[in-house]
Amino acid sequence: MLTTLPVTPSTSAPTALRILRLATAIAITTTLFGTASTQSRADEGMWLYNQPPAESLRQKYGFEITRDWLEHLQKASVRFMSGGSGSIVSEDGLVLSNHHVGADAIQKLSTAERDLLRDGFQARSTAEELPCKDLELNVLIEIQDVTDRVNAAVPANLPAEQAATARRAVLAEIEQESLQQTGLRSDVVTLFQGGAYHLYRYKRYTDVRLVFAPEQSIAFFGGDPDNFEYPRYCLDVAFFRAYEDGKPAKTPHFLRWSADGAREGELVFVSGHPGRTSRLLTVAELEYLRDRAFPELLDRLFREEVNLLAWSGRNTENARRAKDELLNIQNSRKARLGGLAGLQDPTFFARIASAEADFRRRLADSPDFEAARTAYDRIAAAQKTIGEHALPYRSLEAAWAFRGELFSIARTLLRAGDESPKPSRDRLREFRDSNRTSLELALFSTQPIHADLETVLLADSLTHLTVRFGATHPLVQTVLAGKSPRARAAELVAGTRVGNPDFRRRIYEGGAAAATAAADPMIELARAIDAEARRVRQIMEEQDEIKQQAHAAIAKARFALQGSNSYPDATFTLRLTHGVVKGYSENGQSIPAFTDFAGLYARAEAQGGQPPFDLPGNWIQRRRKLNPDTPFNFVSTVDIIGGNSGSPTVNRAGEFVGIIFDGNLSSLVLDFAFDDVQARALSVDSRGILEALRRIYDARPLVDELTGRRRIRR
Amino acid sequence: MLTTLPVTPSTSAPTALRILRLATAIAITTTLFGTASTQSRADEGMWLYNQPPAESLRQKYGFEITRDWLEHLQKASVRFMSGGSGSIVSEDGLVLSNHHVGADAIQKLSTAERDLLRDGFQARSTAEELPCKDLELNVLIEIQDVTDRVNAAVPANLPAEQAATARRAVLAEIEQESLQQTGLRSDVVTLFQGGAYHLYRYKRYTDVRLVFAPEQSIAFFGGDPDNFEYPRYCLDVAFFRAYEDGKPAKTPHFLRWSADGAREGELVFVSGHPGRTSRLLTVAELEYLRDRAFPELLDRLFREEVNLLAWSGRNTENARRAKDELLNIQNSRKARLGGLAGLQDPTFFARIASAEADFRRRLADSPDFEAARTAYDRIAAAQKTIGEHALPYRSLEAAWAFRGELFSIARTLLRAGDESPKPSRDRLREFRDSNRTSLELALFSTQPIHADLETVLLADSLTHLTVRFGATHPLVQTVLAGKSPRARAAELVAGTRVGNPDFRRRIYEGGAAAATAAADPMIELARAIDAEARRVRQIMEEQDEIKQQAHAAIAKARFALQGSNSYPDATFTLRLTHGVVKGYSENGQSIPAFTDFAGLYARAEAQGGQPPFDLPGNWIQRRRKLNPDTPFNFVSTVDIIGGNSGSPTVNRAGEFVGIIFDGNLSSLVLDFAFDDVQARALSVDSRGILEALRRIYDARPLVDELTGRRRIRR
Repeated sequence: MLTTLPVTPSTSAPTALRILRLATAIAITTTLFGTASTQSRADEGMWLYNQPPAESLRQKYGFEITRDWLEHLQKASVRFMSGGSGSIVSEDGLVLSNHHVGADAIQKLSTAERDLLRDGFQARSTAEELPCKDLELNVLIEIQDVTDRVNAAVPANLPAEQAATARRAVLAEIEQESLQQTGLRSDVVTLFQGGAYHLYRYKRYTDVRLVFAPEQSIAFFGGDPDNFEYPRYCLDVAFFRAYEDGKPAKTPHFLRWSADGAREGELVFVSGHPGRTSRLLTVAELEYLRDRAFPELLDRLFREEVNLLAWSGRNTENARRAKDELLNIQNSRKARLGGLAGLQDPTFFARIASAEADFRRRLADSPDFEAARTAYDRIAAAQKTIGEHALPYRSLEAAWAFRGELFSIARTLLRAGDESPKPSRDRLREFRDSNRTSLELALFSTQPIHADLETVLLADSLTHLTVRFGATHPLVQTVLAGKSPRARAAELVAGTRVGNPDFRRRIYEGGAAAATAAADPMIELARAIDAEARRVRQIMEEQDEIKQQAHAAIAKARFALQGSNSYPDATFTLRLTHGVVKGYSENGQSIPAFTDFAGLYARAEAQGGQPPFDLPGNWIQRRRKLNPDTPFNFVSTVDIIGGNSGSPTVNRAGEFVGIIFDGNLSSLVLDFAFDDVQARALSVDSRGILEALRRIYDARPLVDELTGRRRIRR
Repeated sequence: MLTTLPVTPSTSAPTALRILRLATAIAITTTLFGTASTQSRADEGMWLYNQPPAESLRQKYGFEITRDWLEHLQKASVRFMSGGSGSIVSEDGLVLSNHHVGADAIQKLSTAERDLLRDGFQARSTAEELPCKDLELNVLIEIQDVTDRVNAAVPANLPAEQAATARRAVLAEIEQESLQQTGLRSDVVTLFQGGAYHLYRYKRYTDVRLVFAPEQSIAFFGGDPDNFEYPRYCLDVAFFRAYEDGKPAKTPHFLRWSADGAREGELVFVSGHPGRTSRLLTVAELEYLRDRAFPELLDRLFREEVNLLAWSGRNTENARRAKDELLNIQNSRKARLGGLAGLQDPTFFARIASAEADFRRRLADSPDFEAARTAYDRIAAAQKTIGEHALPYRSLEAAWAFRGELFSIARTLLRAGDESPKPSRDRLREFRDSNRTSLELALFSTQPIHADLETVLLADSLTHLTVRFGATHPLVQTVLAGKSPRARAAELVAGTRVGNPDFRRRIYEGGAAAATAAADPMIELARAIDAEARRVRQIMEEQDEIKQQAHAAIAKARFALQGSNSYPDATFTLRLTHGVVKGYSENGQSIPAFTDFAGLYARAEAQGGQPPFDLPGNWIQRRRKLNPDTPFNFVSTVDIIGGNSGSPTVNRAGEFVGIIFDGNLSSLVLDFAFDDVQARALSVDSRGILEALRRIYDARPLVDELTGRRRIRR
């Protein structure tokens, strides 16, 4: 599963609650840029839409990329702010993504009596479509290069603290201006780790409704055991519809459905939102990932996975409540283990280190690059400082110590009260005017919050806080207030009212005074640690600033020495990547590019049909109706990473031939360097989707809309 | 599940491979003794058989404990060297324990085609009984107090290193002498953390055969989710038979089966082998457990649980291979989390700390206890040193970095070659003559070893070694030999021959020269780290010696001030404990003492019969044959801990009324202090066992043997 949780508060544009909480899952707090070769070999590259690889496509594939082709694909591409990608597949706002990208939204629509995540859902008409609680979709409309304006606002040689403040201010100013001028969501994106700044303007959809979801057992057939493996057999799709003014949105840019799908060897493109890569990091930063960030994150993931599994096992309703969170954790765990394996491979690491050493020798040979020459040491020093503050940063600001929804909500209420009186540009990024819509969408969500699950998550994270700081640490004593972690968690969850959206609205509108007057125990907990949390956040932002400046110097030198025909690390913004449909070899075995329905049934039988290899009832009863040879999933060499989940795979004609839903195990090192020997991107085939919709689900209206035979009445 | 893995190499008498490997699961390396009140309140106490609580039984229950009663119970009690307890239940060597205690042996008898762990087993005659691969049972014959002789051999004021050597030597000498004189297994046990030394002589059975095991789904109904919970519904039993000279052993001391079981409020006794408690530790030692030992062990358990779950999920044969190990890990994880919760409870911890402070004030008031007064600081200093070497000790000597069977075997071969030329008393404890039988039983076991599982375990532990020491540490570089952890693990497992028992025998008999000549990669790995492993082991043994002396001084003062009517911390040796059958209250709910079969079926239905709440086919088909009101499991206030699994619960008449198989969640703090408000021991009821054997399993021969209607022909 290639969802992403890519943004740290300081380096991107989070949408408050959900993303903030999710961000903690990887809050690795190292900013970026480095040494990888930029003139990409093979089909490497997560290319910017305003700097597409036109020349190499022409040379290698004889493909002429046109402005119209690009614009059409761009405007048919969708970002799911919950952490994935999607595409528009009808002119009436129909949006396709992965089931696992939509799972968060589907979970929030489910109840003990009606488990849509498990049982699936199908709207037979727009009237039956279910409004999601807090799902935000973005469609990229425009990119502007604002590098010069940003750099001009940050004078050279300013101390890091002041530079960070100045940079924050100019970014806020640009975003605010753009919002006022266009009404579009406006995010300034830091590219090349500080080498460039681009303003991204998005159309934003906040009224999004669920149209179709299959049963989770077929969407995620094989579950965690088969995740990141291949061959695979997953109908990992879900359909939503974007609405405007209460009506299906008009979406002239949409992808036509290919009835023929892709074939072996064919050139394909993927348009989506890779979350975060680390290909341009320095060796010092990669060492930090290898030795600290990945292991510490993994320790947390192991612990939380076991905690949720044990709790889920007690009864089926527990399992339902914890399911989505559990899948996120398992997915991150498997992805990070794969990444760590790459970093711990001495050969792999040596290759990266040697590329950096080569480049630094080239810098040393020229008198022009003093700033770049010294940049490496500055980055290493900043990384060291980051490491020294990582524990309190993660525990408090990234809230690893306070897991669950309630603490995040409480802190948002507290900080909204403190931040809103300030001018927008002086606020913490997530509270700026430009982010208000997203913030409020998340904050006032009526998603179900389960006190029992919250207690289990909070008790576990407080236990770990106590371990990491020590039981007698003043911070721990403040947080626990003389109770055991379990007792304190129970007391906080039972006592807080922030689970109630009406209460939230009242406090939010009443500002700091209302937050104080409420005397809510969870808000008071957030307050008790807020000074320290803000302090470490500021340290991290200063170090980020130092690293950004250093990376910008390296980028400048690299552009001078190697040309500017390159792509930046992923930033959960729209990128174009390409490759070919192609099988591979593993342990001497040849693995074909395509799987089919026959393979699905064979795998289920081999596993005795036990979860997670159980098939939904309809898939068993209607097996004979399916053409067993229909292509179901396929692999290609496109360059993808977490966040690309749900991205459309299209052919030269820009037609939809598949939807990205995963990478294989070998692809997990794509974080650090491209590879197309064994690394593969996994798609669900357009033909398999149609066949299943027709034969298993009798989803006639949906099929007709996808094939252009039906329009939606407004 | 109350199995135990209690012994560190330096403080007890491990049987080489299995116990060494198991010991790593808790190798907490803190020796013991402290401050708890010794005049036990309520029914507290894990009493020595040579110091039973005769007076309090008389006063409180009017029960007169006799020498014969005690001897009979002692000689009908069995220690499973794989980590649990049991009892003899017929005069023909029939031994009853828990299914989960026998699971290791049952797993080793299972294959992909014949999964006895899952499907159960029943021998209809002795001819059908299955010889276990390496199961050792012990029956305690005699105890001798050798404290004076041990202390006389260790002159006061000897430096720790020499004192440790002298103590090791005298213990070896006593054991060797006893072995030669009696032919019995002879272990000197350190009691009161050094306050006393007793020689335990055991009859040893190494030809043990499987007679009956139910399906694991009913033995461990509810699995990990219901583990340590109550109410429960588990048929957690397995029957073995001890053989001598190829014939069923004659066992005149056996427990008669009570057809009436126990009733609410009745006095019951438990005779078993509690593994390890920490009730006499000093605050400094408990802080170490709270802040270091438990969290670090838990981190490992979380990681390994996730690793095995993920691997098990890939296919059913993986799941079968990993099952027993996975259950051990899950069980330890849940037990340790419960213990940590107790230690992190400020009220609970303060109670222990305040008892220590009180006692130290009493010491200060008297001029007689100088050694005891200063002992606390010596223990704290030793604990600090232990903490400083904990990482290399655990990683190398306790082999956390080299999980799986193969490394343990390789190291045993290497060390056997190096140790056997030395006089027995100078060898590492597990290689002394007195331990030879156990060592060879384990070493030449024909248990199946699965290369794929070994690789998965080793890769994970090498990954973690790399994380903890850092990728560039010389030790890591030595171990990995330029490979990634995964590649290195695959290479080692593929290259070693120690999985072959014939190879092992050849190397073992050929000694050090053969081990060298073999050039086996796993043996060479063991060799590469052996100097460092031995070095840290020696440091730990010295610190243990310092702590033992200090604890002995405290014990002496305690006996003087409080009388000697007390019991030592558990040491995986036979203890007698008593209590009453009694329900309890939890969260305002009253929980009755007994469950019945009707409750079993209700719980299965509430969980939709999904694993781990699925019932075996016979239990579904024959439901109507069972009397639904038959008592199935019950709780009592007896004082038990890990290692007591399988202990018989007997009534005043010494009849078998149940078998201990678990404690509830509240009992998990019994490690540190007794409690009978909510803490309960769980037994399977003698009536439920008989009813199931009769109605579900048609186990007529077994029932007749249990009820005295049938003798086995020799």
